[in-house]
Amino acid sequence: MNHDILKERQNATFDVEKLTNILDGGPEKTKRRREIESMVLSDPDFKEEDPNFLSRSERYEQAVRKSAQMILKLREYGIADPEEIICYKSMEKGHQQEALGLHYAMFLPTLYSQCDAQQSRKWLPLAESFQVLGTYAQTEMGHGTHLRGLETTATYDPATQQFVLNSPTVSSIKWWPGGLGKTSNHAIVLAQLHTQGNCHGLHAFIVPIRDMNTHDPLPGIVVGDIGPKFGFSEVDNGFLKMDNVRIPRENMLMKYAKVEPDGTYVKPPSAKLTYGTMVFIRSMIVGESARALAKSTTIAIRYSAVRHQSEIRTGEPEPQILDYQTQQYKLFPLLATAYAFTFVGQYMNQTYHRITGDINQGNFSELPELHALSAGLKAFTTWTANAAIEVCRMSCGGHGYSRSSALPDIYVEFTPTCTYEGENTVMMLQTARYLVKSYRQAKAGQQLSGIVSYLNETEHRRIQAQPASARPTVVDINDLASLVEVYKLRAATLVDLAAKSIQQELQNRKSQEDAWNNSAIDLVRASDAHCHYVVVKLFTEKLGEIGDTAIHSVLSTLALLYTLHGITENSGDFLLAGLLNVPQILQISLRIKELLSQLRPNAVALVDAFDIHDKKLKSVLGRYDGNVYENMFEWARRSPLNSSEVHDSFHKYLKPLRSKL
Amino acid sequence: MNHDILKERQNATFDVEKLTNILDGGPEKTKRRREIESMVLSDPDFKEEDPNFLSRSERYEQAVRKSAQMILKLREYGIADPEEIICYKSMEKGHQQEALGLHYAMFLPTLYSQCDAQQSRKWLPLAESFQVLGTYAQTEMGHGTHLRGLETTATYDPATQQFVLNSPTVSSIKWWPGGLGKTSNHAIVLAQLHTQGNCHGLHAFIVPIRDMNTHDPLPGIVVGDIGPKFGFSEVDNGFLKMDNVRIPRENMLMKYAKVEPDGTYVKPPSAKLTYGTMVFIRSMIVGESARALAKSTTIAIRYSAVRHQSEIRTGEPEPQILDYQTQQYKLFPLLATAYAFTFVGQYMNQTYHRITGDINQGNFSELPELHALSAGLKAFTTWTANAAIEVCRMSCGGHGYSRSSALPDIYVEFTPTCTYEGENTVMMLQTARYLVKSYRQAKAGQQLSGIVSYLNETEHRRIQAQPASARPTVVDINDLASLVEVYKLRAATLVDLAAKSIQQELQNRKSQEDAWNNSAIDLVRASDAHCHYVVVKLFTEKLGEIGDTAIHSVLSTLALLYTLHGITENSGDFLLAGLLNVPQILQISLRIKELLSQLRPNAVALVDAFDIHDKKLKSVLGRYDGNVYENMFEWARRSPLNSSEVHDSFHKYLKPLRSKL
Repeated sequence: MNHDILKERQNATFDVEKLTNILDGGPEKTKRRREIESMVLSDPDFKEEDPNFLSRSERYEQAVRKSAQMILKLREYGIADPEEIICYKSMEKGHQQEALGLHYAMFLPTLYSQCDAQQSRKWLPLAESFQVLGTYAQTEMGHGTHLRGLETTATYDPATQQFVLNSPTVSSIKWWPGGLGKTSNHAIVLAQLHTQGNCHGLHAFIVPIRDMNTHDPLPGIVVGDIGPKFGFSEVDNGFLKMDNVRIPRENMLMKYAKVEPDGTYVKPPSAKLTYGTMVFIRSMIVGESARALAKSTTIAIRYSAVRHQSEIRTGEPEPQILDYQTQQYKLFPLLATAYAFTFVGQYMNQTYHRITGDINQGNFSELPELHALSAGLKAFTTWTANAAIEVCRMSCGGHGYSRSSALPDIYVEFTPTCTYEGENTVMMLQTARYLVKSYRQAKAGQQLSGIVSYLNETEHRRIQAQPASARPTVVDINDLASLVEVYKLRAATLVDLAAKSIQQELQNRKSQEDAWNNSAIDLVRASDAHCHYVVVKLFTEKLGEIGDTAIHSVLSTLALLYTLHGITENSGDFLLAGLLNVPQILQISLRIKELLSQLRPNAVALVDAFDIHDKKLKSVLGRYDGNVYENMFEWARRSPLNSSEVHDSFHKYLKPLRSKL
Repeated sequence: MNHDILKERQNATFDVEKLTNILDGGPEKTKRRREIESMVLSDPDFKEEDPNFLSRSERYEQAVRKSAQMILKLREYGIADPEEIICYKSMEKGHQQEALGLHYAMFLPTLYSQCDAQQSRKWLPLAESFQVLGTYAQTEMGHGTHLRGLETTATYDPATQQFVLNSPTVSSIKWWPGGLGKTSNHAIVLAQLHTQGNCHGLHAFIVPIRDMNTHDPLPGIVVGDIGPKFGFSEVDNGFLKMDNVRIPRENMLMKYAKVEPDGTYVKPPSAKLTYGTMVFIRSMIVGESARALAKSTTIAIRYSAVRHQSEIRTGEPEPQILDYQTQQYKLFPLLATAYAFTFVGQYMNQTYHRITGDINQGNFSELPELHALSAGLKAFTTWTANAAIEVCRMSCGGHGYSRSSALPDIYVEFTPTCTYEGENTVMMLQTARYLVKSYRQAKAGQQLSGIVSYLNETEHRRIQAQPASARPTVVDINDLASLVEVYKLRAATLVDLAAKSIQQELQNRKSQEDAWNNSAIDLVRASDAHCHYVVVKLFTEKLGEIGDTAIHSVLSTLALLYTLHGITENSGDFLLAGLLNVPQILQISLRIKELLSQLRPNAVALVDAFDIHDKKLKSVLGRYDGNVYENMFEWARRSPLNSSEVHDSFHKYLKPLRSKL
């Protein structure tokens, strides 16, 4: 063990194991998680090459091998609980993706929810035994978010009782679905349904794309990999072009909408269908943001405790870089954010399950709020984490650029969350739509409940025009409850500003739609402030659940840092709304410095509490034992470019150059 | 040509070619640049595979081949002017790096500047004919910025008249030098010089590391590649471990310091040596920030003109995504920044050459200011561009993640500028040191000149405690000169705050060094504000040089957008300093929306003016003709994973899985 990091651990003021239990959701959960992780670690079949040393094709192959292995292992170990499966897989996958990810995440769930009884009997056994390997083909090259814009057609031919699928244009080629390029032999294809001369909009069809025996593409199908990406090298995101591909009528998923043998279209009973799944996935992404931040801060903070550089005091030995105020200012607010998002992730998970219970009992009342919240928080947390990973990487100096640090991998595997499952700006605008709707309801005298109830408090509606100094402020910058209130009023102000902007545009004779678009900047800001308020609120509420005094104390310091740092980063908003005055803003800057010093002795212990095993973190810089340099050397020597002492290019190009000059 | 992008070009209000000339520095420069670019384009030897389709080893090999080819071509074409060489190489290299980069950038220049006459006669012919291939080995695994911390030793042995080089610890292994791993047969090694029992600090030694004929590592040398990185796959950044490696006394670079045959150390006459080179490289990086931004905004804005998505007005066709206010708000301020940094880059280049002239005549008076400015602007522009590239990438939705967009390549090749040639936070603190020194001089009654002369204006020193509403403000938010003044006062306020923080710490009985470290957050903010002021000032001054009315108009709009956007992003500072009041901040938000609409018709023309050839941009999304989708499909089909229809992993893992379940 490196002596610096050992000393850091001795300085901690709280019991790390107890905090780990809180993060896991109880000591039993910690225990079970470690049991599952050790199944992977102790398994002789679990061996792999660092993907950074492999070609794209080798990386894909390694991922397929691991996917196949995981299927067998999970059965062997009898792991069936969804959370435990995630735990097992995330240990085995490391930072990388699963080759069969879409089969689990989209293909099977869609079959479960949209097959009629007969279809279930046919397809589920095939899919559950992995004879049918499937993906979900919705996105086209020219069309993403906007489902009505999709161009793929499925035209019913009553003569043969078949659907004829076509990709009528280049932009209609299916593009991006994971596992489509090489892995899958079937795809659920979303296409515009045409029958009896009418178009009935988007419906889902099971389309065989490769021969189940030879795996060759079927006639009329052009399928392949969309090529290298920023990350996701393990996944064969694919393209699919269909030219008069015929499938039997029974391959349309018919639990809801139907096409009769003669071509008669039967409408689905209700349109409210996959809404829930979408909300679920977005809620889960909040937790992913927290995990990516936990990994990144673990690496950057441990390394900053081990790395010595430059000098603070002349003549003294080089200090740990964690002693520099600028380094603390980069990392500790992100550490606080990692905790904040972890608790918000727990909340979203619990809320989702609670509301799902309600929904199953026919109570949909809370769904719109959760839908709006999951959209906004998905965007808020992924944008924050995305930028934060890069701050962590760059805080490690040159070594952060080495793939051995794992930070480049963490970044490229995480950054797609900003775009998939709802592009972030679109998500923010969805939340804004809910906020503006609620604002108008409140204005019309309706009493709002839930998280937007602050919009009832009309008194704060016109504060933005008031100078800070003119209002008496009673904010206590050391009191979280008081600060939550300030965040709330900031959100109210920005929602008000956005709503007013729309109103102003309407008065200028703009249409509703143009007024909305011309206020979009304000709407995104309002959503952002709303989400920020929710995070601060949930972090503060979480503290109420913490019994252990030492842990309560250090988490309170983190929560205060998160909250005050957010104020300095957005000080214009708080000044503008007259919520804080100039002396308070200056005081907050000083307070933040004190909090950094206060957190300094606990920084390593706080990342230790995330309890991310070295084999999962896969970072030379973030090793638990702090033995960075010898392991970096060891890693580099295994790099493929070192497999021979003299690279071929010397003989081919450099030596011959001499004679040509 | 795509009809959307054609229409965009028809809507432009200015002559694109004239603006290109301004960016190039005159019509003749545009002409010559295009001539050089066409030499590469029309050359049958200039063919290459997309590096994204190659393994690391193949990428390195392709880069070596191109490096060797460029040497021969430049001689063949008789291109010798440094700027023209850069132009030729940047066309041939694309986004990637040169395998022999360090040989040119560090090895040769160090030989030129630090060899004595005899050494020059021996080494220059060898290095210039590429028999000796060299690199510059300073950074060690455990030590970067802080030169005194380097551990490598060179101990003089008078008995044999040799230096004995050693890497005494793991952390002393040379790490990161480009070209060290596989390419170089010599390295200039920076080591602590020991002779006659004394250590004389860091000196440079020419160390043969590989046999010039066989290229095998020499005895006592362990050399290799440090492994894959985030980008820079073309470069063999290397490690070097030396175990009692003996080199002749004459291999110490002896133009200044010397070691006599008996071991007597002779001091260098002056310590002021490579200062100028450092300033030069940092100044050049400002231009690199501009070019990276120009590439990224070209891609994102052209694609946003071609891409249609969702709907603004119900029932109408999907609009170009460039019509969304949020998209404009993401991209147009970055476009403005690209222009701002281009002009700042031109200024730094001119200033460097002017000051170099002065220095050659013995006048060093302006060097400290340029040193401080180049450090701060290097950090300010690279941080900004770094984040901006990612905003551009994510503004392209899913396709931004595809390597075919070129945005991932641009990012990973650019991001190291935040760390190399001076880590950005360290750079900001260097600038702050100059600012605080100047501030104290001004306070002591000295009259400052140059860019920091605003620190003379003591009247603004205490404004931070004044509420905005209490001061009469005469700022015209449409007048750039007035806004430059506001940025200047903001910088003055933040320098004042930082200096006061140091003072406060000293009053609390802290040492100078601790007071500095405890004020580092404020110091970085002050530097940032200073740099921001300089950029706004230089952009505004540049407008005075533009004669063409139409171009003057559109560049003024860009400059105003850059300036006002900077205010909203930092509105807290301006409110806090009492420089703007709340109504003005709200008015600025409205004005920004107007500016976005005003720029909309010129957006594509403004990126066209950067005149980046498709073969240099290498982006399917950013193609000049806008034909994105067909080319994306074409690119994907060439991807190596599509070389066979059925991937081996199907036969190896997926098919066998069926029988095991």
